[in-house]
Parts: sequence; C-alpha cells; structure tokens
Amino acid sequence: MKLVDGGITAPQGFQAAGVACGLKKDGAPDLALIVSDRPAAAAGVFTKNIVQGHSLQLSRRNIRGGRARAVVINSGNANACLGPAGDRDALAMAKAVADHLQCPESEILTGSTGVIGKKMNMPAIKAGIDAAFAGLDDSIEAACRAEQAIMTTDLIPKSCVVEFELDDTAVRVAGMAKGSGMIHPDMATMIGVITTDCAVDATTLHQLLRSAVSKTFNRVSVDGDTSVCDMVVILANGAAGNRPVRPDTPEAVRLLAAIEKISTELSRLIARDGEGATKLVEIRVDGAMDSEDAYRAVLAVARSPLVKTALFGEDANWGRILTAVGYSGASFDPARCDIYLGRLKVCENGCALAFDEAEAKRILQEKDILIRIVLGAGPASDRMWTCDFSYDYVRINGSYRS
Amino acid sequence: MKLVDGGITAPQGFQAAGVACGLKKDGAPDLALIVSDRPAAAAGVFTKNIVQGHSLQLSRRNIRGGRARAVVINSGNANACLGPAGDRDALAMAKAVADHLQCPESEILTGSTGVIGKKMNMPAIKAGIDAAFAGLDDSIEAACRAEQAIMTTDLIPKSCVVEFELDDTAVRVAGMAKGSGMIHPDMATMIGVITTDCAVDATTLHQLLRSAVSKTFNRVSVDGDTSVCDMVVILANGAAGNRPVRPDTPEAVRLLAAIEKISTELSRLIARDGEGATKLVEIRVDGAMDSEDAYRAVLAVARSPLVKTALFGEDANWGRILTAVGYSGASFDPARCDIYLGRLKVCENGCALAFDEAEAKRILQEKDILIRIVLGAGPASDRMWTCDFSYDYVRINGSYRS
Repeated sequence: MKLVDGGITAPQGFQAAGVACGLKKDGAPDLALIVSDRPAAAAGVFTKNIVQGHSLQLSRRNIRGGRARAVVINSGNANACLGPAGDRDALAMAKAVADHLQCPESEILTGSTGVIGKKMNMPAIKAGIDAAFAGLDDSIEAACRAEQAIMTTDLIPKSCVVEFELDDTAVRVAGMAKGSGMIHPDMATMIGVITTDCAVDATTLHQLLRSAVSKTFNRVSVDGDTSVCDMVVILANGAAGNRPVRPDTPEAVRLLAAIEKISTELSRLIARDGEGATKLVEIRVDGAMDSEDAYRAVLAVARSPLVKTALFGEDANWGRILTAVGYSGASFDPARCDIYLGRLKVCENGCALAFDEAEAKRILQEKDILIRIVLGAGPASDRMWTCDFSYDYVRINGSYRS
Repeated sequence: MKLVDGGITAPQGFQAAGVACGLKKDGAPDLALIVSDRPAAAAGVFTKNIVQGHSLQLSRRNIRGGRARAVVINSGNANACLGPAGDRDALAMAKAVADHLQCPESEILTGSTGVIGKKMNMPAIKAGIDAAFAGLDDSIEAACRAEQAIMTTDLIPKSCVVEFELDDTAVRVAGMAKGSGMIHPDMATMIGVITTDCAVDATTLHQLLRSAVSKTFNRVSVDGDTSVCDMVVILANGAAGNRPVRPDTPEAVRLLAAIEKISTELSRLIARDGEGATKLVEIRVDGAMDSEDAYRAVLAVARSPLVKTALFGEDANWGRILTAVGYSGASFDPARCDIYLGRLKVCENGCALAFDEAEAKRILQEKDILIRIVLGAGPASDRMWTCDFSYDYVRINGSYRS
C-alpha cells in the first residue's frame, strides 16, 4: 500500500465538483458533489445522537439499498430541527442530483453541515447543483474544490489517497473529510466521504467501514460535543476491475487496511485542525484491564478541558492527566500507574518524579505530542487523537452563528 | 429559617483562623483552621475519583469515628501522588493540630488543595498551624480569613449562614467552600466545611449531608473535570442545646433544609466564580422519562464546551443545547422537545422558532441565565448550575503550575 497524490477523484470512475452557491456569507465554496460513473456499492456510519439532521436521515434511509451514484453535501446550513420542511428540502436536494444523473433519487446520498435550525435556501442549492454538474470532472483541482466546499470552521481541506494491489490490479481508496469542532465519538464525528474503485459488495463494505471507523474516526475528540450531522459514507464502484472482494478473505483484510489508513490520516488531520488547535495530541493507554477500560481512560484524558488547556500552555501538569484517568471509570491501582510525555517519564507508580522541566517544556512545544499512560492493570491498549484547548476555541465558538 | 450575617464561626462553640504560611507564592493566606470547643459529631462526603490526595484519605479514615474537634486545610499544595511521604505529611498535619488541642489525632480532619505531585513544605505548615492557633477566635474576620485561606483560583471567598428554631432553641448552620475549576459531579466537587451547633448524632448527620450534597454540590459543573481532593465535611457540636435530632423526624427535616440551603448557596457561588466565568447558568430539565434521564440531560448540557462558549458569546445557539441533550443518553423524542432561554421559547417540538433575537440577546447579557429544556417524555426534573467558558478559563488553566 502506498500513499499517492490526488483527492476524492483519484479512484477510477469518480468525478467531483465544489461550488459557491451562496449559503456561506463570505462567498466561500459551500456545495460539494461526488459522482460515480456507474452505480456503486455504498455503506455508511451515522451519528448516534438522538437528534439527527434531515439530510443525514435521508442518507441513512437511502443507504439501506446498498447502492449509490452520488453524494451531495452543503456547508453553511445543517438542515436540522426544521420539521417536515427539512425533510422536503433534503429530498429536493437528492431529486435535483438524480434528475441530472437520470437515476433513482434513492441512489443519492445527502449531507448538510452548519448552523442548526435555519431553513435551507433551496433556490441557491438547486442553482449550486446545476453549477456543480457543469464543473464536474476528475481533476485534482475539482477534488480540492469539493474538499473546500464541505468545510465549516476547518482551516485546511482534508484528503488522502492510497493505492494497493489486488489480483495484480491496482486499486485506489480516497477520502475527504470536514470536521473541526463538535468532534467526539461515539459516532462518525464529522462528515467523511470515501471513494474506491475496488469491486466489493455493499454488505462487506459496511463491515469494513464499521471496523475502520471504530478505530479511527471514533477515536477523535476535539471538544466532547457531537453533532447531529455526522456521517462517513463510502462508495465502491468496481471500476478497477478486480474480482469482487469477499468477506473474511486476505483481499478483505487488504481493503480494510487501506480504508483504515485513509480513516486514520483523516482523523489525525481533523484533530490537528480542531477549532483553535495549536497541537495534535495522541493519548495512548497501555496496560488497561480490558478494552472497555482502555477506551474509558483515553476518552477521559482526551476530553478533559484541564488537560487540554495545560497542553495549550505547554505546562507539564501530569497531575491532571492522572486525575482524569482516576475519574474515567477504568479500574486500576494508582500506585501502579506511570505517565509519559513523549519519552519522558513524569509519574511513576502514581507518584511525582523529579523530571527535567526544561525537557518537558521542549516536548510540549512540539506540534505533535504523545501522552502515554501505563495502568499496570492488564493487557489492553487504546489510543485517541485530540488537540489543545486555546483562546481561539472560545473565540470561534462564542460567535458561531453571527 | 433565615439567612444571617457571619461565617463559619457563626454557630456557637466554633472558632476559626486563616494564615499565610508560605505555600502560596504570592503570600496570600493558605492555611485554614476550624475548631469546635468540644468534640463534634462529624460526617463527610468524598470524591469518587480513584486517585485520592493523602490529606483527603486521612480525613476519610478519621471520619469513620463520627467525631471531630477540628478541620485543618491548606491551599497551594494538593498533597497528592506523593506515596508514603504524602501520608506521613497528612498525619503530621493532624498531629500538630491535635497537640494544640490535646485530643486524639483521629479527631482532626485534614484537607489539601492545589498543585498535585509537589512535596508539602511541612516546616511552613507546622509554623502555620501554630500561628493559626495564636489567631483563633470566633469573629467574622477570623471566619473570613479561613475562607480566604482555602481559595485557589477562586476570586471570591464563599460562605453562608442560616438560623432556624428547634424546640424553641435557635440553631445555626454555617458553611464555607472553595472551588473554581476541576468542578463536576459525582463527588463533593470542591472543598466545603459546614459547622452547626445543632445536637445530632453522626449517623443521622451523614444521612442528611449525603442527601443535601446529591442535590447541590453534586449539581455543579464548571469544566467536567473532578479533583482528587474534593470533600465536604460537617461538624455538629450540640452547643445550641436542642434535644438531639433523631432520624426521620420533623426536626431532621428542618435540619436537612438548613444544610441544603447552605449547600445550595455555596454551589451557586462556586458556579458563579467558576474559572473565567462571566455568568451563572442554571440548566433545568423538565419532562424527562425518569430521574436518571433528567440527570443525564442536565449533565450533558452543563458540560458542553460548545454550549458554554456560546453563552460566553451571548449567542442564542439553542441547536447546541438540543444537540447535547441528543447525545446525553436520555430517551426522548426530539419532535416533542421545547427549549427556553429565560422565558423566551426558542425551540418548539424540536424545531426552530422565529424568536426575537434582540430579546434573546438581552436575556443572554444577564449575569444569571436560566436554560430550560422540556423533553415531553415523562414527569422527571433535574437542575444543575454551571457557568460560561471564556478566554480566562484558558488563560487560568494554561499556566496553573507556573
């Protein structure tokens, strides 16, 4: 498997477009379209929030058929909490795309992200869809415009492409994602679209996507908040010409590895681009009693505002890390717990070490920080990506609607 | 029951002192002493964090006897994560107080709050205890110095006194507390000391304290983080001369009401003085299916950084409130959910209302804000106090150790 240049259109048979249709006040691109030249197997993972956006609900319904031609996503408006009007607008969005493709509306996946509770400007969206079809192509530039068009408070567009071989056939998997705030598991935690020219059935694809998401997109926390519009969808159009991948085969394992690689890279990009973030922080827990405890521990540390503000301040306040593990619900004996900042051990057997503060400061000044907690309670590990908590997080979120 | 002036020494038979012994770099008071002139019935509620400070562990052991003469608390150092040395220092602190009072060490309760993992300066603490005994008296000024001496990032000292009658005898209950960051339930969430001259046995006192704490101190969240030093202790010395309060009597109900009043006032003061807070926010949930769901819902909203930054920005972003309830784990139908900011309904049946933005802004500009969420799923209610999330929270916590 190797990383290759390109974006969401790098797998064969996919085209994309990103246009500004007027939903964002600053005139930035706000409508993305990704189209497969043939019906693709499709699978998705959706937010577990009880409140769900109308566009997401439509995708959830449509994906049950396991087949999709296109994904259309607008930013600037979440199309959420609007009652029947929101459902109608999601359907109208799907219909406008289906009309262009002359395909059933049920083969269109819709996504919306932005402010909650604001009626969609449907004339703008319909005009945007027309413009997107006019600009549709498979260039890197088109892929990049699509990436930009799904951004909200993101500062950088996020994409990744890998290539690997199946039956001597080159297969590609590409992904793009948005997400900067309202990021937390237990759900997709952002909007992601993955395309592949691999031939694989929808059921197998769904298994692989779920497995990959649980280890990657569900291991990112920016602020502990989770949105009503989160989803990751994958389209596999078979254009590479490989023999269709069957479940529980070496080929499935290789495809899973590729999907996981894409998901991992996008997850790290999301954490690094977390609202106001100045650092990408990986929290790793080893020696937990079981995987549930390992998850509880990484989650508590990754979510702690006190840990995250200390990271912003580059302050080696390991007491807050131990404290967060202590209230996480994980079972462990503090007297057997060690904590490392990078390779520097700062706490041993639950007690303070006289570590080198200057060295700790140097480690915390890096843009990539690893915090490792060894619980000494068993064999289980987990890891999670997060970022620091800065003034800018407060600034960005103090006036999001205005 | 009426509020009266005074502090922790307002009930008969209690004296207090607060001195600067040199633990805090800025020379502010950092050692508080509260002494009953006779052995008092004692009860306590302690953090549920697995990691626990050494001074707190000693209090937890000593309070099992149900009897205490004094409480000594230092700020500036948490006496936590220090191994056997931390236990020895807590014991030495208790012994120094017991020596002055000529009482068993087991009748001394110890508390420490501040930086984790830093060895206590015991010569300073012992000298401080001597100075505290020299300055011990029952004046309001002494009570105020004790309040100040337990503060860490608190901006205001916090105390409250009430008086009520039992058998035609005036009884007083007084409380003081510290707590500004690392504030969240499921534990005492801060350090609090309550004194009363009411006669009551330790078992009954413990029941009443637990009941009061569950509705008050365990209903405050500043940042979702919880400390290793949290505790609330109560001393009842019987100096008022009432007939001892027995469990499940009208007198017990009246004493509970007084303890709850003190705990409520202190809890609100803690939320209002939350690190960086500009507003006191009460989150109320009505119409939940059951009390567990009501608690889940208030907890999720009170903890959400996105809700709290929007409050700081005075932005009526009710979508974030509904989103937080949506991921709280509470069962409800979003299509039956209403949300109010103060008396202004902003969301009805899960949908946006065309509310008056200027009116919403006026409500959010207040220093006291009530957010009410009506779930329409059942009869249960709960409420919680929190504050907004500001630049100052980040500033304060970015450099706490330095």
